[in-house]
Amino acid sequence: MRQFRLGLGQINPSVGDLENNTKKILSFIRAARASQVDLIAFPELALTGYPPEDLLLKPQFLKDTVDRLQEIAKASQGIGVVLGFVEPKADIYNAAAILWDGKLAGTYHKTFLPNYGVFDENRYFQEGNEWPVWTIAGITVGVNICEDIWYPTGPHAAQVNAGAELIVNINASPFHAGKCEFRHKMISTRASDHTVIVAYVNLVGGQDELVFDGGSMVYDEQGKLLAEGKTCEEELIMIDLPIENVFRARLHAPRLRKEKFLYEQPRIPAPRIMVSPASLSPVKRELGVHEPYVHNTIAEIYSALVLGARDYVHKNGFKKVIIGLSGGIDSSLVAAIAVDALGKTNVIGLLMPSRFSSEASHQDATLLAKNLGITAKHIPIHAIHDTYLSTLSEEFTDTEPGTAEENIQARIRGNLLMALSNKFGWLVLTTGNKSEIATGYCTLYGDMAGGFAIIKDVPKTMVYKLSSYRNARAGREIIPRSVFEKAPTAELRPDQKDTDTLPPYDLLDPLLEAYVEEDRDIRQILAMGFDKEIARKVMEMVDKNEYKRRQAAPGIKITPRAFGKDRRLPITNRYRSL
Amino acid sequence: MRQFRLGLGQINPSVGDLENNTKKILSFIRAARASQVDLIAFPELALTGYPPEDLLLKPQFLKDTVDRLQEIAKASQGIGVVLGFVEPKADIYNAAAILWDGKLAGTYHKTFLPNYGVFDENRYFQEGNEWPVWTIAGITVGVNICEDIWYPTGPHAAQVNAGAELIVNINASPFHAGKCEFRHKMISTRASDHTVIVAYVNLVGGQDELVFDGGSMVYDEQGKLLAEGKTCEEELIMIDLPIENVFRARLHAPRLRKEKFLYEQPRIPAPRIMVSPASLSPVKRELGVHEPYVHNTIAEIYSALVLGARDYVHKNGFKKVIIGLSGGIDSSLVAAIAVDALGKTNVIGLLMPSRFSSEASHQDATLLAKNLGITAKHIPIHAIHDTYLSTLSEEFTDTEPGTAEENIQARIRGNLLMALSNKFGWLVLTTGNKSEIATGYCTLYGDMAGGFAIIKDVPKTMVYKLSSYRNARAGREIIPRSVFEKAPTAELRPDQKDTDTLPPYDLLDPLLEAYVEEDRDIRQILAMGFDKEIARKVMEMVDKNEYKRRQAAPGIKITPRAFGKDRRLPITNRYRSL
Repeated sequence: MRQFRLGLGQINPSVGDLENNTKKILSFIRAARASQVDLIAFPELALTGYPPEDLLLKPQFLKDTVDRLQEIAKASQGIGVVLGFVEPKADIYNAAAILWDGKLAGTYHKTFLPNYGVFDENRYFQEGNEWPVWTIAGITVGVNICEDIWYPTGPHAAQVNAGAELIVNINASPFHAGKCEFRHKMISTRASDHTVIVAYVNLVGGQDELVFDGGSMVYDEQGKLLAEGKTCEEELIMIDLPIENVFRARLHAPRLRKEKFLYEQPRIPAPRIMVSPASLSPVKRELGVHEPYVHNTIAEIYSALVLGARDYVHKNGFKKVIIGLSGGIDSSLVAAIAVDALGKTNVIGLLMPSRFSSEASHQDATLLAKNLGITAKHIPIHAIHDTYLSTLSEEFTDTEPGTAEENIQARIRGNLLMALSNKFGWLVLTTGNKSEIATGYCTLYGDMAGGFAIIKDVPKTMVYKLSSYRNARAGREIIPRSVFEKAPTAELRPDQKDTDTLPPYDLLDPLLEAYVEEDRDIRQILAMGFDKEIARKVMEMVDKNEYKRRQAAPGIKITPRAFGKDRRLPITNRYRSL
Repeated sequence: MRQFRLGLGQINPSVGDLENNTKKILSFIRAARASQVDLIAFPELALTGYPPEDLLLKPQFLKDTVDRLQEIAKASQGIGVVLGFVEPKADIYNAAAILWDGKLAGTYHKTFLPNYGVFDENRYFQEGNEWPVWTIAGITVGVNICEDIWYPTGPHAAQVNAGAELIVNINASPFHAGKCEFRHKMISTRASDHTVIVAYVNLVGGQDELVFDGGSMVYDEQGKLLAEGKTCEEELIMIDLPIENVFRARLHAPRLRKEKFLYEQPRIPAPRIMVSPASLSPVKRELGVHEPYVHNTIAEIYSALVLGARDYVHKNGFKKVIIGLSGGIDSSLVAAIAVDALGKTNVIGLLMPSRFSSEASHQDATLLAKNLGITAKHIPIHAIHDTYLSTLSEEFTDTEPGTAEENIQARIRGNLLMALSNKFGWLVLTTGNKSEIATGYCTLYGDMAGGFAIIKDVPKTMVYKLSSYRNARAGREIIPRSVFEKAPTAELRPDQKDTDTLPPYDLLDPLLEAYVEEDRDIRQILAMGFDKEIARKVMEMVDKNEYKRRQAAPGIKITPRAFGKDRRLPITNRYRSL
């Protein structure tokens, strides 16, 4: 039986950090070579990090990238390397380099460029139109990139027609809840449809609003899982591929062989390129037994939030963070995630009680900090608040106290957090959730002040689930029970409750999902059983508060449609479909 | 001589306001019909406003748009109408409707979709692939959209080959300095190259970061200007076209006739559609004499800023604005623009002196307010500042005063402005210029707090020019002379000057232009004669401060490359080309 050892370099590069990304890639190549890997594949744009955005418009950046690729090519002695990079060649391409024997053997250009949701690839890239196969260590390999494999009759179909026994599909696929399951199903289907082994390698790491969750995988020609990488961690996955099975299955699967010819004609016939005549390393290794993929949404999301928070903080050169602790569930969860991401010595909690803060909130915040083992600082805002009110007393003569007075408190807290941030170099983490940012139930420059918003895409009802999950994982009450039990409140006026302004969260969140994530109109939303007045009010709050979201800190996308790059509504927008 | 009266409806719609946009379009159609216009053309996406962004992903919005189009079609009795709208038809298209005799006679789909700079059209639209001509009132007309006419051999070439005597090119072309001159040259060239009359109709109005400046125009078949619309104002432009000249010129211009056949084959042969057999309204009118387009950059920019400010404020439902007046040139210019945009009774100035504010600054701000005739409020921040410092004294023990203490003052001012905004419903205008926002020489939630940043894309050196222009136009010193003469300062510590932190602005601004707008690398910038240490420092400031810009208020694009949608750099970005 022919042997072929495949490596998947599931790495966490930093966008723009060509020097360190190169070092990381070289170290993975060395480790793979030491383990007699024939071919190692790295993710899409692994060299530059994904997405490099308008760095791609800087000619010097493109040149520097190509220089690094040459450096890596030289290190491909005795091993094949597939590496995502950007190729400037008249236009620029989202490309895969095929490196062999110290040289660049060829490149592949991504054909299907996503330009929706968070993606802007048409802004930068020209689409590819050649779908070659390479013979690497005696095996015929088709390389393609990310969404190239999403279409049943895309490049992989042409590559299989040209003899590919292995499809290497390199990815930078950002996480959202449930996406991993979709990927597994799709890759398994492509493999069995085409009687070909499919290796899917994904990036890992956080980049601004995105988390790449890894979970690389290899499916055999029957659509069975052969290997699977960890989620949210770097890993060098190595596996010996049963290549001969592909040949055998194709002989014994006339149905599949016949259907191959039903695929639409590829736009460009796939040229066949000989890279190396035979396997370098005839090694045999036992294949592990792999369980089918099991879905655990809440655990997946929690891991993604930890990774996204850690990478944002570290890749931006911060070590410590500061969080305003109110004793509520949002700041409690953010603190717990921050501790998991950064370690308890790198998280500072700041309690900033006002005249409207309850003793219970104070106790909850203090207990949370104790449970997490973090420093809790304490700066009451009464005196500052009083000074604002007396300073403004003349201007505010004969007016009723309202939002203005409430927001002053939130903005004092924002100012104090930023003062400590400026003084000590700690990044401020904001604590708002998706339900709040959707409805504008938050104060610009107040509780919205800060550099990163970990749970910005987490609806309030899911905040509770994640908090329960964290406690369950610890086997004890990290987040105190009373935090779960009390009614949510901003505590900006006496006896304030979120439900004074918003519908209950278990009603609000599905409504927001229908309107924000699914673009349902009022008729469809009413047909789901929502009350007309509530639906209108919530939809109007969402529409009216685009201006706040535009000035919000970035946060981690975990749903199919986050705010930020994912949902681009004008601020000036007079459309109301009510 | 055949007569054909053309109308160009240079209108200012609001994004999403289908009801009022429809009313506006109907009123322009009525006025045109009353003046015996044969064909009236409205700009690109005039019905929805431009750009509707992710409103286009709402099925209900698309349906509502088509309903409105039907309503407008019914009003096209006795007049031809070309109207930009979005057509859902399997996919969605950036379309022009040709309305005639109460019916939708046909549609044209934009072929060249911009997806760079501020544009994201590939995110939404499928490209068109038919370039028909219509016979309207006896004249053969080719309709196309915006960048369709940018390519020498684009749709207009096919339409001329199919007999078009008039090309109607409908636009939503955002302003930047110098763009108007480019448009004139290009449209003139297309007209003379193809011996065809070209009518170019542009939107007018502000939409978030964009200003559409109007300046619609008609060029004759020799490339001479026949008519020109106002800039930055709504207008119904009407002109009798010398159609017979086109025929005559083609007979007498063998060079042009021959070259026509050199154009590359259009992708789809242009079908010929008969809309109406003959002119409805045989009217004769003297053609005006038109001066060639004269370029006055500073006046153009000033007008664009006024329009952009007015439309942002009004289209978002505000009437009054509040501006923090420091006595510096930036807030002075912003106040002057706001008065021109909104009227002096709708602009409130707020002076917020601290212990570091000079008496001269106070006098300058007071005099400016007097010259503009606006209310000047006065809220000193000493007491609040002292309370912050005493509240923080324990945390700040044994530290040197620095940025933290300075920023507290800026954020107190932000909080006071927002308090008045929340209390009285006034929009806060921020006063930062492009040089500051580029280098991060500004305080998040401090002087950056506010809803709209009028001069965000105006470099400091241009702030002075615009201010001089405003004074010159008034024929008196609206902005006091001393404001021009004193050294720029943030006044956040004793004797602070901008030049403590930044190079002088006449050196900084060209450096920023090279790096931010032109993506020049360090070698190119040094070759321009800049000092290495200064260049490195400035480039690093620009790179490091993306996080601030991401939370900045939107502002008006006036340069070829603004911050915001126009320049999309990652926050997490470790690339340094130094």
